[in-house]
Amino acid sequence: MNANKIPDIIIGRLPIYLRALQRMAEKGVQTTSSQELGERVGISAAQIRKDISQFGEFGKQGTGYRISFLTDKLREILKIDRIWDVAVVGAGDVGHALARYQGFVDRGFRVVMVFDNDQAKVGQKIDEFIVKDTSVMVEEIRKAGIQVAMLTVPATAAQEATDMLVKAGVKAILNYAPISLNVPEGVHVQHTDPVTHLQRMTYYL
Amino acid sequence: MNANKIPDIIIGRLPIYLRALQRMAEKGVQTTSSQELGERVGISAAQIRKDISQFGEFGKQGTGYRISFLTDKLREILKIDRIWDVAVVGAGDVGHALARYQGFVDRGFRVVMVFDNDQAKVGQKIDEFIVKDTSVMVEEIRKAGIQVAMLTVPATAAQEATDMLVKAGVKAILNYAPISLNVPEGVHVQHTDPVTHLQRMTYYL
Repeated sequence: MNANKIPDIIIGRLPIYLRALQRMAEKGVQTTSSQELGERVGISAAQIRKDISQFGEFGKQGTGYRISFLTDKLREILKIDRIWDVAVVGAGDVGHALARYQGFVDRGFRVVMVFDNDQAKVGQKIDEFIVKDTSVMVEEIRKAGIQVAMLTVPATAAQEATDMLVKAGVKAILNYAPISLNVPEGVHVQHTDPVTHLQRMTYYL
Repeated sequence: MNANKIPDIIIGRLPIYLRALQRMAEKGVQTTSSQELGERVGISAAQIRKDISQFGEFGKQGTGYRISFLTDKLREILKIDRIWDVAVVGAGDVGHALARYQGFVDRGFRVVMVFDNDQAKVGQKIDEFIVKDTSVMVEEIRKAGIQVAMLTVPATAAQEATDMLVKAGVKAILNYAPISLNVPEGVHVQHTDPVTHLQRMTYYL
């Protein structure tokens, strides 16, 4: 199997499966089926079986998936069987929320730095973080070897901040700014946006 | 064509196409192809053609899609050729960010109310909004006929708030709390979570 050939659309579904599996595990459930998983995530059982089988034989006909095993495998595939340090760029409302977010625990990530270019925010505390000046961002991120960042600056500042992150060696950017970012080959961007989620639901109303 | 039979997974991709189309239109682009659109959103051209053709013949062999026409059609399909009023529940960091978010404009939604159960927050201003007490939420939402809500309360409070929203007649909930919500048939929940986005990128690192 050549992992590079697996379509991104399949990769994008794995975290959804993983989240559902982890929720089931928290409730003490030990095994599941593609049917049950499918009902939880709104994807057909056939699609789930097809997606997962791209990576190996992780379930058994009749008995389904052992949740702890499948969870481990998915974490391994997604490379979150480790902890990735994450920089937050922008100490506004969303930056604060991310710095304090409780949902990173046990899911492969931890915020380690928060930056802003607003001198009124630099030096302020957000829980255990002290907001750092964007002027030292490239150096600090490079020194710490951070590869993952979350970008929460205004749209007008987003491309400039992105260029700095790329220069610092960041390879994965979660973009909260409502704008497309230009990045070189090898740098990955995901855009998160409340509107696309809302639009998906109004279809049914 | 029976719209009810279109898989949710396809519906979920339409807002992604729409966002990319709107970005292109902002740059003055007038036509596009499934190839070009595919490169922008990371989905194969064949998949895009297949998804869009579920709803009709919106493009032409050789000339591709007229962006304004396809945008109008997608907005119609997703029922965002109108403006949906939205209630924000929870006036913390994320609630503030959503109340102030500039990305709703021209995309089918507007925040009209913000609620919190914390008496220290009730009565506070967030730009033009005054935070209302959750105790009046069911009544206010019902009176205003609001069907869409964004839930930004802590995980421990999320189910209770959801039950109130359902009672108030809300049919679509965007959930920012890191917890699964139980809702009756006919109520739609989308969960948004920075971690699933990050996990999709670490695969490539």
